[in-house]
Amino acid sequence: MGLVTCDIAVSLDGFVAGPHQSAELPMGEGVDGRLHSWMVEQREENASELEAITAAGAFIMGRNMFGPIRGAWEGSWKGWWGPNPPYHGPVFVLTHHAREPLAMDGGTTFTFVTDGIDAALDRARAAAGTGAVSICGGAQTINQYLVVDAIDELRVHLAPVILGAGERLFDGVGPKSFEQAGARQTGLVTHLNYRARR
Amino acid sequence: MGLVTCDIAVSLDGFVAGPHQSAELPMGEGVDGRLHSWMVEQREENASELEAITAAGAFIMGRNMFGPIRGAWEGSWKGWWGPNPPYHGPVFVLTHHAREPLAMDGGTTFTFVTDGIDAALDRARAAAGTGAVSICGGAQTINQYLVVDAIDELRVHLAPVILGAGERLFDGVGPKSFEQAGARQTGLVTHLNYRARR
Repeated sequence: MGLVTCDIAVSLDGFVAGPHQSAELPMGEGVDGRLHSWMVEQREENASELEAITAAGAFIMGRNMFGPIRGAWEGSWKGWWGPNPPYHGPVFVLTHHAREPLAMDGGTTFTFVTDGIDAALDRARAAAGTGAVSICGGAQTINQYLVVDAIDELRVHLAPVILGAGERLFDGVGPKSFEQAGARQTGLVTHLNYRARR
Repeated sequence: MGLVTCDIAVSLDGFVAGPHQSAELPMGEGVDGRLHSWMVEQREENASELEAITAAGAFIMGRNMFGPIRGAWEGSWKGWWGPNPPYHGPVFVLTHHAREPLAMDGGTTFTFVTDGIDAALDRARAAAGTGAVSICGGAQTINQYLVVDAIDELRVHLAPVILGAGERLFDGVGPKSFEQAGARQTGLVTHLNYRARR
């Protein structure tokens, strides 16, 4: 069985997105690319970490990461990533609202899971085979998987900014401790790797 | 004029101490050395960072870092550090309650400052001469100096633990951004250096 990994970009004060995320402001107020500039402006310098983010065999994300729609599904929202999302594999979206699976270009499929995080992990593991399952976010989804000790490798991409408000990683998760598994600083980010203590 | 520096050990979820600090639990509940084990168990491995912590010409700390007493001074509390504290220089303690200076062994003096953080910084700068002024903590004191952009070098010593509660670094400080100035991981901690953008 593959590892369960998690890559998340976070501010020094622990936020993965600003408040009031919306269709106009996918990352919420006050973020303006400040958490992810390393992904855009310095792709080569961060190539190994970027490759690792989408190397998993299957992916899990929360409904709020998939899109700005809350409550029942309306319209034909297909994610933030255009017709050919960067996952190129099965993506399981946690939601309370059932929806038919969406097949995208390039091998990405969005499957909507309404029976909770354990069921989603089981399905992602089955889909991934020997590959890893990546918990993509957002904060609430990661925190739920941290609480049940499901994440084997946590890769924090720490941006040198303070946001002051937003969606907080690790909220409601502690106490917990990890093994350190590496740190690498590039121009706009520090990559911090942690392993679960088993 | 020397730099204003700040060294602070912090958990992954941003806490520098647990809740309910007291004479019996100086670091608060749930900490048990988990933020500072690198200082105790791996002194050699972290020698350069440890030396830097007390290399300043003068120091500033909050009253809650100096001791567990709240309100008016009572008894003869002289800090947590015994007769010969590790500062070996002038330490300015922010407090609302006036008290005569305390001269300790080894050159440490505790001077109690009741007229605010700017006055304390002025006095510490004068005392440090060309040396650095170190903001020692706790979280509230550091956050106040971050708000007014007084800290030139912020050195975060990140422990691989989640505490879940306590005194939070960066609370009420943002938005702000820093220049990265180095990252080094040793067995029990990752040292992260940041410079103020001027």
